[in-house]
Amino acid sequence: MMNKRQKLTILHTLLFFVLGIQFSNAQKYIDYVNPFIGTTNFGTTNPGAVVPQGMVSVVPFNVTGSAINKYDKDARWWSTPYTADNKFLTGFSHVNMSGVGCPDLGVILVMPTTGDVNANLKEYGSVMSNENAHPGYYTCDLDKYGIKAEVTATPRTGLSRFTFPKGQSNILIDLGNGLTNESGAYIRAVNDKEVEGYRMTGNFCYYGHSERPVYFVARFSKKASNFGVFKKMPALQAEKDWSSTSGKFKYYEKFQYPVSGDSIGAYFSFDTTEGEAVMVEVGVSYVSIENARQNLEFETKGFDFAATKNEAEEKWETALSRIKVEGGTADQRTVFYTALYHMQIHPNILNDANGQYPLMETYGIGEVKDRNRYTIFSLWDTYRNFHPLMSLVYPDQQLDMVRSMVDMYEESGWLPKWELNSTETFTMNGDPSFPVITDTYLRGLTDFDVETAYEAMIKSATTPEKSNKIRTQNDFYLAHGYVPFTEDYDNSVSIALELYVADWNLAQMAKSLGKTDDYKKYLSQSKQYKNYYSKEFGVLRPKKADGKFLDQFDPLQGKDFEPVHGFHEGTAWQYTFGVPHDIKGLIKLNGGSKKFTNKLQMVFDDQLFDMANEPDMHYPYLFNYVKGEEWRAQKQVRRLVDTYFKNATDGIPGNDDCGTMSAWVVYSMMGFYPVCPGDMNYTIVTPVFDKVTIELDNQYYKGKSFVIIKAGAGSDAIIDQIKVNGTNYPSYFISHDKIVNGGELEIITK
Amino acid sequence: MMNKRQKLTILHTLLFFVLGIQFSNAQKYIDYVNPFIGTTNFGTTNPGAVVPQGMVSVVPFNVTGSAINKYDKDARWWSTPYTADNKFLTGFSHVNMSGVGCPDLGVILVMPTTGDVNANLKEYGSVMSNENAHPGYYTCDLDKYGIKAEVTATPRTGLSRFTFPKGQSNILIDLGNGLTNESGAYIRAVNDKEVEGYRMTGNFCYYGHSERPVYFVARFSKKASNFGVFKKMPALQAEKDWSSTSGKFKYYEKFQYPVSGDSIGAYFSFDTTEGEAVMVEVGVSYVSIENARQNLEFETKGFDFAATKNEAEEKWETALSRIKVEGGTADQRTVFYTALYHMQIHPNILNDANGQYPLMETYGIGEVKDRNRYTIFSLWDTYRNFHPLMSLVYPDQQLDMVRSMVDMYEESGWLPKWELNSTETFTMNGDPSFPVITDTYLRGLTDFDVETAYEAMIKSATTPEKSNKIRTQNDFYLAHGYVPFTEDYDNSVSIALELYVADWNLAQMAKSLGKTDDYKKYLSQSKQYKNYYSKEFGVLRPKKADGKFLDQFDPLQGKDFEPVHGFHEGTAWQYTFGVPHDIKGLIKLNGGSKKFTNKLQMVFDDQLFDMANEPDMHYPYLFNYVKGEEWRAQKQVRRLVDTYFKNATDGIPGNDDCGTMSAWVVYSMMGFYPVCPGDMNYTIVTPVFDKVTIELDNQYYKGKSFVIIKAGAGSDAIIDQIKVNGTNYPSYFISHDKIVNGGELEIITK
Repeated sequence: MMNKRQKLTILHTLLFFVLGIQFSNAQKYIDYVNPFIGTTNFGTTNPGAVVPQGMVSVVPFNVTGSAINKYDKDARWWSTPYTADNKFLTGFSHVNMSGVGCPDLGVILVMPTTGDVNANLKEYGSVMSNENAHPGYYTCDLDKYGIKAEVTATPRTGLSRFTFPKGQSNILIDLGNGLTNESGAYIRAVNDKEVEGYRMTGNFCYYGHSERPVYFVARFSKKASNFGVFKKMPALQAEKDWSSTSGKFKYYEKFQYPVSGDSIGAYFSFDTTEGEAVMVEVGVSYVSIENARQNLEFETKGFDFAATKNEAEEKWETALSRIKVEGGTADQRTVFYTALYHMQIHPNILNDANGQYPLMETYGIGEVKDRNRYTIFSLWDTYRNFHPLMSLVYPDQQLDMVRSMVDMYEESGWLPKWELNSTETFTMNGDPSFPVITDTYLRGLTDFDVETAYEAMIKSATTPEKSNKIRTQNDFYLAHGYVPFTEDYDNSVSIALELYVADWNLAQMAKSLGKTDDYKKYLSQSKQYKNYYSKEFGVLRPKKADGKFLDQFDPLQGKDFEPVHGFHEGTAWQYTFGVPHDIKGLIKLNGGSKKFTNKLQMVFDDQLFDMANEPDMHYPYLFNYVKGEEWRAQKQVRRLVDTYFKNATDGIPGNDDCGTMSAWVVYSMMGFYPVCPGDMNYTIVTPVFDKVTIELDNQYYKGKSFVIIKAGAGSDAIIDQIKVNGTNYPSYFISHDKIVNGGELEIITK
Repeated sequence: MMNKRQKLTILHTLLFFVLGIQFSNAQKYIDYVNPFIGTTNFGTTNPGAVVPQGMVSVVPFNVTGSAINKYDKDARWWSTPYTADNKFLTGFSHVNMSGVGCPDLGVILVMPTTGDVNANLKEYGSVMSNENAHPGYYTCDLDKYGIKAEVTATPRTGLSRFTFPKGQSNILIDLGNGLTNESGAYIRAVNDKEVEGYRMTGNFCYYGHSERPVYFVARFSKKASNFGVFKKMPALQAEKDWSSTSGKFKYYEKFQYPVSGDSIGAYFSFDTTEGEAVMVEVGVSYVSIENARQNLEFETKGFDFAATKNEAEEKWETALSRIKVEGGTADQRTVFYTALYHMQIHPNILNDANGQYPLMETYGIGEVKDRNRYTIFSLWDTYRNFHPLMSLVYPDQQLDMVRSMVDMYEESGWLPKWELNSTETFTMNGDPSFPVITDTYLRGLTDFDVETAYEAMIKSATTPEKSNKIRTQNDFYLAHGYVPFTEDYDNSVSIALELYVADWNLAQMAKSLGKTDDYKKYLSQSKQYKNYYSKEFGVLRPKKADGKFLDQFDPLQGKDFEPVHGFHEGTAWQYTFGVPHDIKGLIKLNGGSKKFTNKLQMVFDDQLFDMANEPDMHYPYLFNYVKGEEWRAQKQVRRLVDTYFKNATDGIPGNDDCGTMSAWVVYSMMGFYPVCPGDMNYTIVTPVFDKVTIELDNQYYKGKSFVIIKAGAGSDAIIDQIKVNGTNYPSYFISHDKIVNGGELEIITK
């Protein structure tokens, strides 16, 4: 028999044990993140140090300079500063994009070396080893030099700590190297521990757009024993014999005038003892060098690396803990939290610490107060699922994103399409801001300038193409309801499909605002997709201006970026169900539920589905629109999650597209998905986890949290029963309202 | 009989006739100037528009871009932005050097074109015709476009007027093109009628020194209908197919962010009517863009071209009228006034309108009040005759030049050697600031910081070579009295000769300041040239550290820039009499008067003399040091003047060397010459003109003017008698004091 005290002790022990397990099991959410996921297979994510939505990321740049690299940025279309396939490091870039399919940014490179200063990246680059990454932190060794590199970040600064061997150690700031295909830089050594400058960026997607400078100030933790700038000199012709630097790097020792050029940079040299760490912090701004300096002064922790890293980790822990999952394998949790992590990279803040940011497309300077200005809107991708998920989990951020989009309209006259650092890159097509604005508004996040947003949408929808920056095929579309095929390999059908979903969202917005005429007009316009349906082929098919279908037509054309008539980066099959706003109409168009189901199943069976492309990512969920066929959705979604999303460098099926693929897998692993933005119903599949708790932001939503419980048979079993708040729920759709009011969704499998 | 009225009328008519003749004869002094003199034959002067000692000159840049040019700056050592040998114009450069043997500056090019904008200079360049130049003004036609170009200048700005045909007309600002071998620029279109930027300069003499930016702001008289910047894009490799601008010029339309790079610029396009003139004014600063803008605002006449041109002409007329010559041929007057004109190009002002200027070698900003900061000191050349003449004719300017030199010491720790825009280029050798400072001081121009100047000279003379920026062979020299030959083609003898004349000047300075010990020390040091005298060859000869002469020795080696042991750009013969401070000692060393005279005559007879090189330019005057042989000086000087100085593009015998050749001919045509700076005696030869009146600056000198009259036989006759103020003068030497006290020197030939 035990006395009460013994019992209490045992209880305490047990309790401690249980909590201990729970602690060691759940640990921190950031510990589940594997920043290397997506760093091969063209995922184009990177393991660099960044805070949630940071302007700065500090990324190991290893995509040029050596044949030991599998991929070289100059040898093909290449859009990421880092790949785990490569091992030759040429520094750490300080402004980068994650999960993007076009090259840009990847500049302001900081590289530690030892011995004589050498500005030639082929010569100063080093094999890297012992890589390790954790949210807000990255480290590797530079084998050539015996240097340990560690990097962390604040929102607008990067902090690097380099542990050097004894001797002459150097830190290079290379403004020649970079991922962007734009070039040109300015640098000025301010003194023996500070350097300032800017680097041109742009030429996003090689389109020759989006050019703009990014400004920086770098400061060192120690005074340099020597410093200077360098520049690759143009080769002289007959005069080369008289100039020792013709066609070579020239080093301007202790030079403090500004230097401009293409291949330029600065070097700071230090006499280091064995194991001595020298740090460099780099502040960035898109407004001015002065703002970059202010950002540095505002965010620096005085070269306290540990404190900077800790704060970065805390920011990530706070962000990731908005969704808590239990159950699943460790790898599944890693896939999930890494996806959530990838969703917190872009859009990122553009405003400086003082609130200033570059105005969209007008060269002026704007200022935000008590909110953030966001940038890097890959809207053709992110409107589909990313922004709905942001609205649910991070409504404060999503509202600032929509406010930023409306600001862009006010500044430039147009809503964004693919915005990059206050420039419109005109990448992809359609009018993808509409679903984002409408979806956000309908989810109850209405604290933005709705009137102006609506005005902006109407302007884009109605302005003739000649003076329309976004809808450049508007005239025929407005007159005839579709975009005609006009030349080989045009994207006519894809463009039109985007406009239909945009116009449907505009209709929903009009409806909410009581603008009935507009509602009817745009709803009707959104149904015109039927124009493209070819009974002969059973798919959407390019149509000419004379109303006739394109003759030479192969619905399989367009796989793997093969050129294709009428479609953008995909086959007719990958677009044929691309009408998320009218699935009922689509089913009817395809001959009813049975034929629709068969055709959809065939798409999966015959590998016509592309997990890596956005237009068809909602396809597996479409089975839920046919009663009795929901098991197919569950099966396909689970198959796709298991097949394409892995705790491995190739764990994302192609470009993450600024978090769009990640949003897909976050939703899919939680067991629900928003098939159509602007439609407030999610559709349900089997969750991967036993329990998912979404912490709701009570500033915006009534519920404290929404919990999804999986019960019943095994993990990949088929749903038998659904309960909401303990009550049988006879539907595979659940509304946004139900979720944000809090409660519990129980999914019982058999 | 005439009545009184008739008489008066006739008198008036006669008077008018006389005055009319006088007017049409003397006209303005500027009308004698032919700015094309020296623009071939490596004179390296140019016909650009400039005001006396202006920071800005607007020079037709025609030294690159086409095979129709005889000389291309990229095809050989080339140091001038213009040559009359060429005809392919690629714009007007706004900062330039005149009469210099090394390439630098020649940047901020402004080029008018018509039709589509094309940034490729090989394509936008045009054949030029109808050239005309006048002090402060230059014009030509651009045959390709039918454009008439006219340029004028203020001290810190250039103003160009381009008269266009009907249609699209453009003005390009090309920062890629230029004479300097340094590269890199920054440009920003401020709005539709203003652009700002900077261009890197430096690499003077291909040495890799003297790098610094020059800033500018350009404004147009009319708003551009379109504008933008351009940049030559680096060539992409595998990715070139996706980028339309790979390896080509990219045009950034209406782009207002800064652009940096090597080949960059801006374009401003205008819809012009037939014969419409568009003007562009370019303000320059070596401090900042803001100062360039201030300079523009301070000096602009609001695009009043005629007023700007008139003011430039008036400045020149004022400067040139300090010496008035009568008699001689029109060509002789043109040679004379063009030489005086060329003496007023460099040194030029460096300070902005607000007094700011870049500190020497320290990246800070200095400020002058009520005086000018000068730059471009080619001291190895100019110390010989240019500065003595400046002291005599323009003492106010000369004082500011010496003040500037002393400031340079205070700023950088060293007196200048070859200073260029507050950088030390280390060009040529010796310690050439000493004779300038001493000579100026001894001429009575003592209102500078003499104590600091003396301190600076002592520092340079005594600092061991390791930490001596100027005297880099000081250790052996101080210990043994000469600079030893240490490696093939070193300049040891030439360097030592420079040090001797410098130290002799230091001795003179010490003497004036009552520093007797220093006087003795440096006087003794200055006599050590005797070390080099080889009895065997009768010339100075390189000597090794062991005290033995160099074995392989050819006193003829070194002609025409042929490499030579021990001498700098010249033969032993051209240096052997290079001891202007001890001609008596030199005569003795050479075996007495007779042998000396014979040897000197032989140098002329055997064409061992080089008129184009500074070290021997005093040779013809050395005959005056042997009584009875003065006629030889007169004969040689006249021969040299007539042979090498012409009213023709090849009218200067090689580089003008910042006015040194010009000073030689100005003196020689007036009939006297300062054989040795620091020696207050001039020596006399036959003047070219019948009468020369030097207007003395009464702020510094007692006399109102000093007049030289030639009387007697023909122009090239030998001197029979010399009178000063009407009294027989039994010497071929006249002191500075005598001249500046005013009076008349009469030279009577027979």
